[in-house]
Amino acid sequence: MSIITLTTDFGTHDGYVASMKGVILGLNPQAVIVDVSHTVEPQNVLQAAFIISTVYPYFPEGTIHLAVVDPGVGSRRKAIILKTDTAYFAAPDNGILSYIIEESGKVHGKPARQIPSTAESRKLPPGLEAVEIGNPEYRHHPVSSTFHGRDIFAPAAAHLSLGVPLHKFGDAVSQLHAFSIPRPYKNASGELVGRVLHIDHFGNLISNIRSGDLPAGTATVGIGKHRIRGLSGFYAHTRGLSAIIVSSGYLEISLKNGSAAEFLGAKVGHEVRVE
Amino acid sequence: MSIITLTTDFGTHDGYVASMKGVILGLNPQAVIVDVSHTVEPQNVLQAAFIISTVYPYFPEGTIHLAVVDPGVGSRRKAIILKTDTAYFAAPDNGILSYIIEESGKVHGKPARQIPSTAESRKLPPGLEAVEIGNPEYRHHPVSSTFHGRDIFAPAAAHLSLGVPLHKFGDAVSQLHAFSIPRPYKNASGELVGRVLHIDHFGNLISNIRSGDLPAGTATVGIGKHRIRGLSGFYAHTRGLSAIIVSSGYLEISLKNGSAAEFLGAKVGHEVRVE
Amino acid sequence: MSIITLTTDFGTHDGYVASMKGVILGLNPQAVIVDVSHTVEPQNVLQAAFIISTVYPYFPEGTIHLAVVDPGVGSRRKAIILKTDTAYFAAPDNGILSYIIEESGKVHGKPARQIPSTAESRKLPPGLEAVEIGNPEYRHHPVSSTFHGRDIFAPAAAHLSLGVPLHKFGDAVSQLHAFSIPRPYKNASGELVGRVLHIDHFGNLISNIRSGDLPAGTATVGIGKHRIRGLSGFYAHTRGLSAIIVSSGYLEISLKNGSAAEFLGAKVGHEVRVE
Repeated sequence: MSIITLTTDFGTHDGYVASMKGVILGLNPQAVIVDVSHTVEPQNVLQAAFIISTVYPYFPEGTIHLAVVDPGVGSRRKAIILKTDTAYFAAPDNGILSYIIEESGKVHGKPARQIPSTAESRKLPPGLEAVEIGNPEYRHHPVSSTFHGRDIFAPAAAHLSLGVPLHKFGDAVSQLHAFSIPRPYKNASGELVGRVLHIDHFGNLISNIRSGDLPAGTATVGIGKHRIRGLSGFYAHTRGLSAIIVSSGYLEISLKNGSAAEFLGAKVGHEVRVE
Repeated sequence: MSIITLTTDFGTHDGYVASMKGVILGLNPQAVIVDVSHTVEPQNVLQAAFIISTVYPYFPEGTIHLAVVDPGVGSRRKAIILKTDTAYFAAPDNGILSYIIEESGKVHGKPARQIPSTAESRKLPPGLEAVEIGNPEYRHHPVSSTFHGRDIFAPAAAHLSLGVPLHKFGDAVSQLHAFSIPRPYKNASGELVGRVLHIDHFGNLISNIRSGDLPAGTATVGIGKHRIRGLSGFYAHTRGLSAIIVSSGYLEISLKNGSAAEFLGAKVGHEVRVE
Repeated sequence: MSIITLTTDFGTHDGYVASMKGVILGLNPQAVIVDVSHTVEPQNVLQAAFIISTVYPYFPEGTIHLAVVDPGVGSRRKAIILKTDTAYFAAPDNGILSYIIEESGKVHGKPARQIPSTAESRKLPPGLEAVEIGNPEYRHHPVSSTFHGRDIFAPAAAHLSLGVPLHKFGDAVSQLHAFSIPRPYKNASGELVGRVLHIDHFGNLISNIRSGDLPAGTATVGIGKHRIRGLSGFYAHTRGLSAIIVSSGYLEISLKNGSAAEFLGAKVGHEVRVE
């Protein structure tokens, strides 16, 4: 239980991330700290939520994931720790754990046309536990009003890695904020319609359509004015645009030797259709 | 005494930083290496100086901070180790430790209108110790003339982390180069006038005005043609531009959901006024 | 044998690199993981090859270097482990180890006018060993067709760091793909003509001309319409463009306080002449 991962929108130019690491190592010199991403678009909670969701399954049981994209720092939003079957998450209660709550809590999203822009308070699904980080003993003092990553979340993660039990951090929490991750829906023509959830470093478009959603038989995937015939097995044999089920189980649109996002002018939220 | 932090202008695209880490781990496999920043603007010594100054207080006692922004590599500038009450710094003697020397040496800068462009030689304040890294035993051979980060500073930090005492590295040094960090001054109208010291990843402008410099009562902060009424307690409740005392104690100007630097066209050195 | 370095074109925005680290740490919690570069231009195998070649000599014996720039992922290109006198390399067999094979195998490239665009199959030089990573026991399951970095190379590196002997991973391989790294040649006027191999973070141009290739006495270096008289000893004393033998032994062209690449409009493959 000594791995701590970090996901933030702090960038790596200033010393913000390093300060968090200093606080963690000061409390637990044995902690192994792994950067997930620090280039989350400033205050884009949902982008961070997606990134964390693709990474945490590959870490050993007991790993502590610290996620701080926190437009509400200093306001009354709660600082929480969420415990699932396999991992811990220390984060502001602002929707950044939406995917985790859905997947770990076996909650299934609903078919929807839009990616919601606000997180809603939701009852914690069975099997998950959460507490508010309230105990001043586990904070870095003085606690600033602008940098809870360093003063609240980093020390909480460090103490957790040292074996402090969950209930010592503060009161149990039964409601958490989450975005409803939209599932693809069927339109009037019988097409399955999904949305681009994420655009990665290569310009690949990752949609909310999963392998289980797909009709049997050969599919045609449409995005904007483009139609892609058939799903490819892997990147290597493709030419031009291709649609592929990637390792996370999502349908992804990629461009051979290029950026599909740039080629298509696509953004998060754009429509992806399967016929 | 086994944490080593790294601050450079080397970027992370080439293998320069990794080579330094290889040298450190070859000497001390137990060293815990933490990146502070590698995107310091090429040869911007003062930017690196600011970044390090905001980070080192959060690391445990005995941490070794390696800082290499080194336009004079290969010239006669000294390679030094500075020891303060709580930490070690291995760096070229070119002003990169200016804030450290001021803070650790309890030297107070003077009110000034400009951020100086050159570092001046200055007597080491009481309580600080420094040595030149001269002993060939603690270098990586052959020592190149272009990459002292790898061949001089990295091995020095590694040997220091192994417990080599300071005097073994070379002769004591009683003068170090430092930039005079300007303090805010009062202008003819009685306004407190400071300067932007740093612009962070979010586009926040961090000035040289500290909480202790501020007049009692509500203040109005001016930058360019803009006036900001009152100091905010934290980011969450603000609209548009706001002025806030951040966790480092500095007065910062930020823009809700945006980059103040971009919005204002502001640069390091720009004037910030408090009425 | 517990240091693992990572070189990829995955970027650090998504969680791809972190997923690999999670897999490694799940298998070997003691592994020390060092990032070399994750900003290799997408699918630029030769750029990655150059970067790794400048870094691995600075790591302790037994270090495992994982290199994944892998346009052929999912195709029939092999996944291999290469063992040299001092290090291990886990990588696709696509030329990414070209410099390693030449240097470790004491193979000397031939004078040539072009940097080749394809890697050719070549007999493994004496003293080097290679195996195909075939044993399913050392993979992360299910093995995706799009992310062998996480599912094949990361677990192979982790198992290697735990002491699994080379032959357990799969069949020995006697041929590997490599690019022929061109050596400089003499043109009709008796000039030594080389090529820019790499452009670094500072915009320095690193050529394929090495100190041993240079004629005795003062040399003049030409690039485009510019002529640089004499070789400099180090960066500090130079003005404008300068030519210098850097620590890797290569002739480099740099610009005082600026980017030579930008100033000259130079790219990888451009001609560098020595008279």
